[in-house]
Amino acid sequence: MKTISTSKSHGGVQGVYSHASETCGCDMTFAVFVPPQAADGPCPVLWYLSGLTCTHQNVMDKGEYRRMAAELGLIVVCPDTSPRGEHVPDEKDDWQFGSGAGFYVDATEAPYAANYRMYSYVTRELPALVAANFPADMARQSIFGHSMGGQGALTIALKNPGRFRSCSAFAPIVQPSTADWSKKAFARYLGADQRAWRTYDTCALIEDGARFPELLVDQGEADGFLQDGLRPWLLEAACKDAGIPLTLRMQPGYDHSYFFISTFMDDHLRWHAARLAQ
Amino acid sequence: MKTISTSKSHGGVQGVYSHASETCGCDMTFAVFVPPQAADGPCPVLWYLSGLTCTHQNVMDKGEYRRMAAELGLIVVCPDTSPRGEHVPDEKDDWQFGSGAGFYVDATEAPYAANYRMYSYVTRELPALVAANFPADMARQSIFGHSMGGQGALTIALKNPGRFRSCSAFAPIVQPSTADWSKKAFARYLGADQRAWRTYDTCALIEDGARFPELLVDQGEADGFLQDGLRPWLLEAACKDAGIPLTLRMQPGYDHSYFFISTFMDDHLRWHAARLAQ
Repeated sequence: MKTISTSKSHGGVQGVYSHASETCGCDMTFAVFVPPQAADGPCPVLWYLSGLTCTHQNVMDKGEYRRMAAELGLIVVCPDTSPRGEHVPDEKDDWQFGSGAGFYVDATEAPYAANYRMYSYVTRELPALVAANFPADMARQSIFGHSMGGQGALTIALKNPGRFRSCSAFAPIVQPSTADWSKKAFARYLGADQRAWRTYDTCALIEDGARFPELLVDQGEADGFLQDGLRPWLLEAACKDAGIPLTLRMQPGYDHSYFFISTFMDDHLRWHAARLAQ
Repeated sequence: MKTISTSKSHGGVQGVYSHASETCGCDMTFAVFVPPQAADGPCPVLWYLSGLTCTHQNVMDKGEYRRMAAELGLIVVCPDTSPRGEHVPDEKDDWQFGSGAGFYVDATEAPYAANYRMYSYVTRELPALVAANFPADMARQSIFGHSMGGQGALTIALKNPGRFRSCSAFAPIVQPSTADWSKKAFARYLGADQRAWRTYDTCALIEDGARFPELLVDQGEADGFLQDGLRPWLLEAACKDAGIPLTLRMQPGYDHSYFFISTFMDDHLRWHAARLAQ
């Protein structure tokens, strides 16, 4: 692991690191905030998964998580959203596929299967790296994310309920198998058989029996992607049928940007910290 | 004035606007945050001046001022740091001169005098535009900034003590006439006669009799520009000699970045709000 930068912030340290990822077959960059409480012992780990077009940097710059994470004693890990590199197959003109659009799946189709393995990267390789290099209490982990990263957080939590104490999302893609901006990518990463798609689709996972103790979702009502891409009412229906307690907060006037995310960041950090303390 | 974007954030509205600036002879862009309290009447105005290489956007993205400004009811205005445009003389390879490096002076030397008039822009043209277009109580204004923008805030406050209720700075350039990264620009904007430089130099202004009721400065001890560019001890000496109460807080471990600024942003907003409420 290589340290790219570290800066003291809010009493803790915001770092950026890179490593040669075996899972993704390329160098991967990620950000970690370590709170001041880490001086006294391992701290719980909160994973933040970012949305389409993002790298580790967007939430690090604009998410406004450090003040409250420092107060609550949370390590915050922010991975990249896809493999990257000259040898990694990509479509540079399509922001919904390739670089910045890994959708947190393990691709099975050529030529993407060799690198686009973000599910395994985020759930196996990166956690092992974080555990080995940071003062992290890996017995206490939670996960959240935005948009495509909300999809990532929800599906990863539903597939690994024993690992995460809590899960929340900002404006998540709740049914990527049918959403305009994701179904094309799913077809190319995962092939024509839509049974495979269901294992990376929050609503489908719940329909197929996956469970999580409770979920928190904030969604801006002025979000331009609400009707076609996000559709939180589908998650509401799936959770109702499955008996999963969902706190869905529709936020009047808020859009899809980090101006929205940063507004409700404190609430989400407190939500996770309360459950990580139990 | 043209609206480029608006987003609801922390209950208020973060907007970006542009206008044809008569003072600078080019289009200028700026950011304004209007807090929720503006629905009930005009709010006080806090000016944030940014540092070298920045536009209005850096502090808007990374400054983390909205949560507290919304709590305190402050309008925050973030101007650009220089004129810009294909017809504006510039040196694209020099980050300490031209675009992003206006130093908040009115240039007197050709060919810069036609556009590089940031002092007049920030103190006259933009305030008039803000007063005309936003719910701003212009009888209650304060000013702060970072690095070159700290220089701007301090010199503008010292030159207009009746206008501003309070002034603070993050890692300001306190004596730009002698600092490596500013004296070359001063020579080119203002000419060889260093008497003109003194009117844009905080320490010189104080030595020459300018006064302000009190000042707050935060400075990171791990700031790479501390010894050559910033030198807060020069401000400390000048304030001591002049009897200006200066709260200079040396912050161990902090660098020159927005990770530092955002850490102490709340303190500065509270400092200004307390004085704006008097």
